[in-house]
Amino acid sequence: MIGIFEEKSIRAATSPAHAVAAIREAFRADGLGKTIVPPVINLAVAAVDGEFHIKTAYIEGVPHVAVKVASGFYHNPSRGLPSGSGLMALFDAWTGQPSAILLDNGYLTDLRTGAAGAVAAEHLAREDCETVGVIGSGVQARMQVACLSEVRPIRRVVAWSRNAERLARYCAEIGEQIAVEARAMAGIEDVCGAADILVTTTPAQVALVRAGWLRPGMHVTAVGSDSPGKQELDAGCFRRADLAAADRVSQCLSFGELCHAMAAATIERDGIVELGAIVAGKRTGRTRTDQITIADLTGVGFQDTAIASAVHANLVTGSSR
Amino acid sequence: MIGIFEEKSIRAATSPAHAVAAIREAFRADGLGKTIVPPVINLAVAAVDGEFHIKTAYIEGVPHVAVKVASGFYHNPSRGLPSGSGLMALFDAWTGQPSAILLDNGYLTDLRTGAAGAVAAEHLAREDCETVGVIGSGVQARMQVACLSEVRPIRRVVAWSRNAERLARYCAEIGEQIAVEARAMAGIEDVCGAADILVTTTPAQVALVRAGWLRPGMHVTAVGSDSPGKQELDAGCFRRADLAAADRVSQCLSFGELCHAMAAATIERDGIVELGAIVAGKRTGRTRTDQITIADLTGVGFQDTAIASAVHANLVTGSSR
Repeated sequence: MIGIFEEKSIRAATSPAHAVAAIREAFRADGLGKTIVPPVINLAVAAVDGEFHIKTAYIEGVPHVAVKVASGFYHNPSRGLPSGSGLMALFDAWTGQPSAILLDNGYLTDLRTGAAGAVAAEHLAREDCETVGVIGSGVQARMQVACLSEVRPIRRVVAWSRNAERLARYCAEIGEQIAVEARAMAGIEDVCGAADILVTTTPAQVALVRAGWLRPGMHVTAVGSDSPGKQELDAGCFRRADLAAADRVSQCLSFGELCHAMAAATIERDGIVELGAIVAGKRTGRTRTDQITIADLTGVGFQDTAIASAVHANLVTGSSR
Repeated sequence: MIGIFEEKSIRAATSPAHAVAAIREAFRADGLGKTIVPPVINLAVAAVDGEFHIKTAYIEGVPHVAVKVASGFYHNPSRGLPSGSGLMALFDAWTGQPSAILLDNGYLTDLRTGAAGAVAAEHLAREDCETVGVIGSGVQARMQVACLSEVRPIRRVVAWSRNAERLARYCAEIGEQIAVEARAMAGIEDVCGAADILVTTTPAQVALVRAGWLRPGMHVTAVGSDSPGKQELDAGCFRRADLAAADRVSQCLSFGELCHAMAAATIERDGIVELGAIVAGKRTGRTRTDQITIADLTGVGFQDTAIASAVHANLVTGSSR
């Protein structure tokens, strides 16, 4: 019988630090050409306003291959269910035999997405970044800050969200959980004015962040656009950026921020650097303190394989964090 | 906690008759435009001679969506493990929430593939077919005959396989299990000379069945070619055929027998009929007893969703077969 693990034990078997370490190595492997990442499956069921996304990848040297199924069913909240769900199935990378089912309800996707933001910041944000600007007040608004705190001396969060009540709750929680000072801002421009690192985490379909609001020295990570039609950054942001990175260029061009930037011709494909290449030392990240940098993160299958295999190692040995 | 079901209970919860009924309805739904079938994921890991195939599909009215992961790792037999493995994850089609994991080790794939052969024969083989010719001596050599017996008055199997010992064992087993007379033949031409329905079930990469061996009135089902490079039927077979059907035209053109037939220009795309359209009554199947018909089956995600959901219904109610 293979191992079946529930969300509670999965949460106890990992942490932001653990996730950042696993995701950093996954990007490095990707940059070294040691990953195989097939195109994702997107199954949209319009009749029930639901969708499934399936991702998988092989990483040389990682003992498992994860197949991650994530679902989003947008009528669920009216039935008292969360809209998002999912699980990961792990297979032995040497034999293809099933090893485990991680019933994480999407937790590991949230965590590895936060960790990717931290890995991007390690290479693209100034060393002395203390203030994180957050657009949104959901899970990624939390995860990004938790993971950034592992790689930069974060002391302050300035946040804006469409929903004032959720924003207030977010600021209270993030202040307590991450031990940073947290402040709700009146608008996105105010957030941009105070942030060293800006993280956009919304499902917006119209650009929220204007190019003129970016300031020299700022790093921006956009994680909200994970399917066609979504957009958080005005395409002009990429014209202002000194460096634009993508977790996977091909994927970001089909449904990330870069898709809109290419359409608006504010960037050329050759101008986009893959994050793995930077982590592997094949391309340079930030080289000057006054540069503006942007990371477009859409989530790649090797992140799922990396986090799932790392968590599985702790689950079977009984280790935590 | 979601339901986790092992192979033994899965086997007890279904049967050839049960599978044929579910797969027939799935093809009918497909022919009526009631399925959504995204492209499959193929993840090949050359370094370990292994591959993963991931299929999924939505069928209007079926309560689950299955995500099926099948693996083939060809060094496994030298380690005492089967080369093939896999599982199916079931999700509620209305909420996207995980419902069950079917740890079937590929059994349901084998069964639904056999069932698709039976559905093809219902529409393409003569009513009075009594003799099945089988090329190969593996799992599909068994499943196809078991399922064909549900739809045609099968009395006799004539079989050929490259491996004489496995062929002898196959003939002994199939004779006992399906209660048909079974005979090992000296060559493929001999099988063709005796068969009303010919089923090819091998992983051959060079055509085994020559066009000249097909006889008027014969129906051929080819199930071995499930990835690029495989081929069982000489492309000329399609020139001789009066009717060529595919479980999914797009898929068969990329890696089925029809891929080779198109390359050899022995068929035109417009000449290929989708099996679902025939089952739904939108296209005609066999109309005369002297026609030669061919079904190219590569396996479609809606078959996985159909069989998994049907088996799950029996598993949760404790019904069998």
